[in-house]
Amino acid sequence: MKIKIIVPLVTDEYNAGIKKEVDRVKAPDCSISIENLKKGPCSIESRYDEFLAGPDMVKIACKAQDQGFDGIFIDCFGEPLVPVVRELVDIPVIGGFGGAIMAANMISQKFSIINVLDKVVAMNQTLVRNYGMVENIASMPVIGMPVKELNDKKKLTERLVAVSLEAIDTHGAQAIVLGCTGMLDVAREVARILKEKGKPAPVIDPTTTAVTLLQSLIRNGLSQSRLTYSKPEEQKSL
Amino acid sequence: MKIKIIVPLVTDEYNAGIKKEVDRVKAPDCSISIENLKKGPCSIESRYDEFLAGPDMVKIACKAQDQGFDGIFIDCFGEPLVPVVRELVDIPVIGGFGGAIMAANMISQKFSIINVLDKVVAMNQTLVRNYGMVENIASMPVIGMPVKELNDKKKLTERLVAVSLEAIDTHGAQAIVLGCTGMLDVAREVARILKEKGKPAPVIDPTTTAVTLLQSLIRNGLSQSRLTYSKPEEQKSL
Amino acid sequence: MKIKIIVPLVTDEYNAGIKKEVDRVKAPDCSISIENLKKGPCSIESRYDEFLAGPDMVKIACKAQDQGFDGIFIDCFGEPLVPVVRELVDIPVIGGFGGAIMAANMISQKFSIINVLDKVVAMNQTLVRNYGMVENIASMPVIGMPVKELNDKKKLTERLVAVSLEAIDTHGAQAIVLGCTGMLDVAREVARILKEKGKPAPVIDPTTTAVTLLQSLIRNGLSQSRLTYSKPEEQKSL
Amino acid sequence: MKIKIIVPLVTDEYNAGIKKEVDRVKAPDCSISIENLKKGPCSIESRYDEFLAGPDMVKIACKAQDQGFDGIFIDCFGEPLVPVVRELVDIPVIGGFGGAIMAANMISQKFSIINVLDKVVAMNQTLVRNYGMVENIASMPVIGMPVKELNDKKKLTERLVAVSLEAIDTHGAQAIVLGCTGMLDVAREVARILKEKGKPAPVIDPTTTAVTLLQSLIRNGLSQSRLTYSKPEEQKSL
Amino acid sequence: MKIKIIVPLVTDEYNAGIKKEVDRVKAPDCSISIENLKKGPCSIESRYDEFLAGPDMVKIACKAQDQGFDGIFIDCFGEPLVPVVRELVDIPVIGGFGGAIMAANMISQKFSIINVLDKVVAMNQTLVRNYGMVENIASMPVIGMPVKELNDKKKLTERLVAVSLEAIDTHGAQAIVLGCTGMLDVAREVARILKEKGKPAPVIDPTTTAVTLLQSLIRNGLSQSRLTYSKPEEQKSL
Amino acid sequence: MKIKIIVPLVTDEYNAGIKKEVDRVKAPDCSISIENLKKGPCSIESRYDEFLAGPDMVKIACKAQDQGFDGIFIDCFGEPLVPVVRELVDIPVIGGFGGAIMAANMISQKFSIINVLDKVVAMNQTLVRNYGMVENIASMPVIGMPVKELNDKKKLTERLVAVSLEAIDTHGAQAIVLGCTGMLDVAREVARILKEKGKPAPVIDPTTTAVTLLQSLIRNGLSQSRLTYSKPEEQKSL
Repeated sequence: MKIKIIVPLVTDEYNAGIKKEVDRVKAPDCSISIENLKKGPCSIESRYDEFLAGPDMVKIACKAQDQGFDGIFIDCFGEPLVPVVRELVDIPVIGGFGGAIMAANMISQKFSIINVLDKVVAMNQTLVRNYGMVENIASMPVIGMPVKELNDKKKLTERLVAVSLEAIDTHGAQAIVLGCTGMLDVAREVARILKEKGKPAPVIDPTTTAVTLLQSLIRNGLSQSRLTYSKPEEQKSL
Repeated sequence: MKIKIIVPLVTDEYNAGIKKEVDRVKAPDCSISIENLKKGPCSIESRYDEFLAGPDMVKIACKAQDQGFDGIFIDCFGEPLVPVVRELVDIPVIGGFGGAIMAANMISQKFSIINVLDKVVAMNQTLVRNYGMVENIASMPVIGMPVKELNDKKKLTERLVAVSLEAIDTHGAQAIVLGCTGMLDVAREVARILKEKGKPAPVIDPTTTAVTLLQSLIRNGLSQSRLTYSKPEEQKSL
Repeated sequence: MKIKIIVPLVTDEYNAGIKKEVDRVKAPDCSISIENLKKGPCSIESRYDEFLAGPDMVKIACKAQDQGFDGIFIDCFGEPLVPVVRELVDIPVIGGFGGAIMAANMISQKFSIINVLDKVVAMNQTLVRNYGMVENIASMPVIGMPVKELNDKKKLTERLVAVSLEAIDTHGAQAIVLGCTGMLDVAREVARILKEKGKPAPVIDPTTTAVTLLQSLIRNGLSQSRLTYSKPEEQKSL
Repeated sequence: MKIKIIVPLVTDEYNAGIKKEVDRVKAPDCSISIENLKKGPCSIESRYDEFLAGPDMVKIACKAQDQGFDGIFIDCFGEPLVPVVRELVDIPVIGGFGGAIMAANMISQKFSIINVLDKVVAMNQTLVRNYGMVENIASMPVIGMPVKELNDKKKLTERLVAVSLEAIDTHGAQAIVLGCTGMLDVAREVARILKEKGKPAPVIDPTTTAVTLLQSLIRNGLSQSRLTYSKPEEQKSL
Repeated sequence: MKIKIIVPLVTDEYNAGIKKEVDRVKAPDCSISIENLKKGPCSIESRYDEFLAGPDMVKIACKAQDQGFDGIFIDCFGEPLVPVVRELVDIPVIGGFGGAIMAANMISQKFSIINVLDKVVAMNQTLVRNYGMVENIASMPVIGMPVKELNDKKKLTERLVAVSLEAIDTHGAQAIVLGCTGMLDVAREVARILKEKGKPAPVIDPTTTAVTLLQSLIRNGLSQSRLTYSKPEEQKSL
Repeated sequence: MKIKIIVPLVTDEYNAGIKKEVDRVKAPDCSISIENLKKGPCSIESRYDEFLAGPDMVKIACKAQDQGFDGIFIDCFGEPLVPVVRELVDIPVIGGFGGAIMAANMISQKFSIINVLDKVVAMNQTLVRNYGMVENIASMPVIGMPVKELNDKKKLTERLVAVSLEAIDTHGAQAIVLGCTGMLDVAREVARILKEKGKPAPVIDPTTTAVTLLQSLIRNGLSQSRLTYSKPEEQKSL
């Protein structure tokens, strides 16, 4: 099977890191292709950034279906334009949020989503409501690091551990969801430290769980319901 | 006060009807300006239609603020791009959904939202969840008429009455929300017939309630919270 | 249009303050009349106080309808007897709670209601449930000031700012609802200070938002649903 | 222990029936005293009727505490004035709704509350929300009989069976709550018929379950929390 | 009436304490018989402990019905195997959780359940969800004492008071549910201290409230619904 | 990776069908081993059947971990003993319910779970609550066929189509979850017919989605949280 990962940014600086993580979880019969935008934002931290990413993302997604890809992962926790793309193509389309919280819900009862900045909390809270998962969220804490600083893995890990411990101790979190696909390659280390500190919460990476979820849907022959995402009557060009 | 109504369509065929209704509910000190898109869809019945309306709508909204308007009503029940525009401007921005359900929630305990077509039900259900109003919805029935046929007021009224009666009798609706801003100039007639038939449910027009809600926010000096809709760091042009 | 404000207290000491605030938000074609009780409590801080206010309030409300008023605002956040009065009259009747939370829900996703005393929290929580708004409440904090001390605007403002900051930082509030109509003429100042401190939450005054909501309902020709508030068969006198 | 039952009506025509039912469920060490209003409504089918019952009910309740009663049952499913009386007295106070749904919730997962008339559905739905029990309600069907006709036990039983069967088959009800304390002495017969028809739903009588609940609270030394129902500062006479 | 209490442990060390408490709340016409397991765990602090208690508990329960008991109380807050036993017997079966939270819900609006150890919180949270009571839970704090240490009444009382005060002050608890039937003979003392400290929350003992609830069900002739707990077709032996 | 499927029945008659379906969705690097009980029920249609399956299932699960399996699928929609087994082993353990509803929630907003018999509805409703997914369930309809008749694929398909159409048309279902792992090898055919009839709902097979979910968890190195499923202190033998 062939999976297209669309990184909805004009930069390819995250691609290598994404590829490394994804290679760990893809099945032998799965090939991955990563693509960036030609026009759009450098990072996604607002609804307006999502809006800017839209036109190019839609084009790439439609092209991916034409090229025979079996599924699309829009590589952003906030799932920008995912509902629009689900209308346009027949192959399954997922974002970072869905795969991560479905995994979390399977292995725990309540979990916390850790956000990069205060300003994305409401955006992620909207997704929680859209997926009907309010009851399972312990809290939505914030590490206070913008996306562009997330490659400081040491600081990121420290912040994630500190915030996770508080979520576990104070809010009743039983698992931790990393709330940004830019938080790459830290989930296992954070989980290791939490376990060491006597708080053995699983830590869920939204990039790898999205890719395995997508493989699952493809193997099952499942895609977005046309009763939820009806196909637009005519596909008007921009 | 000056209110800008953006009709997110490339056609101005609804403008006269909108103006007529809005004139009934605007205060003496309120002036209204209606504007259509130069580029975009003819009707909004999918998330993709909303996407197509986006770029021009964002430009008009930003321009409206620069021109000194006090508030913006994006004249579509589905509230396309409303969260994006709320980030970009400081004046209050509302869509058709919010004003209508807030009014319904004030005058009843449970109400039904009547949809044009099956395919928009999931879109409107998403808004119900976003506003945290699931508990107050009695049902989401459908009249089975596309937007372009809504000017057949006779058929529209008949369908609305039939569906409303079922919502009241079977689903426990105590008020009726017209779930499309294209259902113009029928609310009072539907309410009259329902009362005549012994089912005196108020019928809520999303266009007029949006305009009065916007006036309310402006008079109170209130606008969207910057803790919900943070201002994007830099306003990158498309 | 003519609006009757019933202050459900035997004292008229708040009337001037109410008038001043209401004058700021009423439309040019709206006139307001404020009336107090002849018999009843001095302040409302318990369900028993609400009970004591009942008989006289019901009489004034019925009289207001006979006198041609277009709507009634029962000027107390706790909405004492509002459901009873809604049954008795045909014109729209609102209390302080409804208008304030509807405005809050329109401009934010989660908000906190600030209470005067611990003992009214459960009363206001009941209203939250009645309106089906549990999901949108961030918290219900308390300033610890009885109604009769609320005219100390300096202390009131300080307490509101302190409690609001905690609600924003700790509970995820994105907007602040002043949970007592006696908290007059402080909303803008509290909002200003919050913004200055980097926490730009809108602050919602229940008196002014009630009056603008009532104007909205009247302009739309809407009143409480008779399917929710059925008219009593015969109006037995006390 | 001594229990006071206040029937919030000016008529004593139901007292014998109440006594007969209550005698079946009271413990050997429990004595019951039934009291009617001197002033108030003949039946309770609106919030205004509840309001009319208020003043006399409050007096009787306070007197009952002075006379050494150990608990009060306000004998109406709608629980009129129960929150007010809970503030005023220290002994436990319950209405018909609470005891019935607590029993229903213990022996089933979802249940229906059967209402006398359309117009009381919203009143009972408010109680459902107040007790935080929305999730457990299968439906709120109506038999269409006013309170004064409920002594036609044959018709009442037939209507209850018909409506219960529909609630079980169509709405997923697993138990039936009789939603009016005037539906006396029919619960067992309705349950028998339902079982005979292959739908063995328990049928819950709000009068007898209230009395046994009250006995339970008294034996446990429990009464309404003063953190929910704070004592009014001074008990102002009417 | 005859009630069987099954203590799902191989030890009888708690029986005397249980008997003492239960004797306080049983009616004159009620006799109690306490029985322990021959095979099973010493304490229940995990789902596996519940599993171990299963086979013997099922046998004792079936035997109790044959012996003419009128109801069964499985004396553990976690309600181990209660759904299984409800299927097998016709007499009412309850556990510690249900009776306690029903009482709490009747006398307060929101309450906290105090847990022995972190590891039972998720188990009790599952019960909260099963009973559809999520909205009424203020918090689920922990005292950090294993069951076997609960006979240190002094330490237990101190811990319960400390945790209750935090639940009241920080989480909005209005009543306290002791979340383990091993917390015997402390409820009144904890309530007394809380009242003394100005936080008059009722404290609910799950053992005594279970026994009075069971008496209530028996007096009303009510038992678990066969539409919720269908009788197994044939009772296969292990 | 090696997956153990435990069919919690004493019969191996379903094994070939399970193997056939599972082979369609397993990745090239995944091997599957199916095992039945030596002692237990022939089908699972009650909580008592689940109880009977317990002891042998626990042994097989623990042995599977010792033998180096990477994950366990307890092949029953009702997830019997899954919480107990999750405590006992470190490798991920899932049942049929979780995988199916997580897939459904990813590709639709509301979905129906189709049950074999009335008597399992409450059991599956309990799982809905446990996973915090109440809001996403459109309905829980029943086909009225016991497990042992499910190999009549023609009748099964007809019943599933009929019930699915009603769920889509009347209850708002956008996807269909087959609520029994015995409904093998019919999902695609039911989906094909629904599409043909103009109701293109995805149909989710709980067996195949469980196996792909388990592969996903294993690839991500995720297992049940020890904060939700704490390891029992000592593993007492039966």
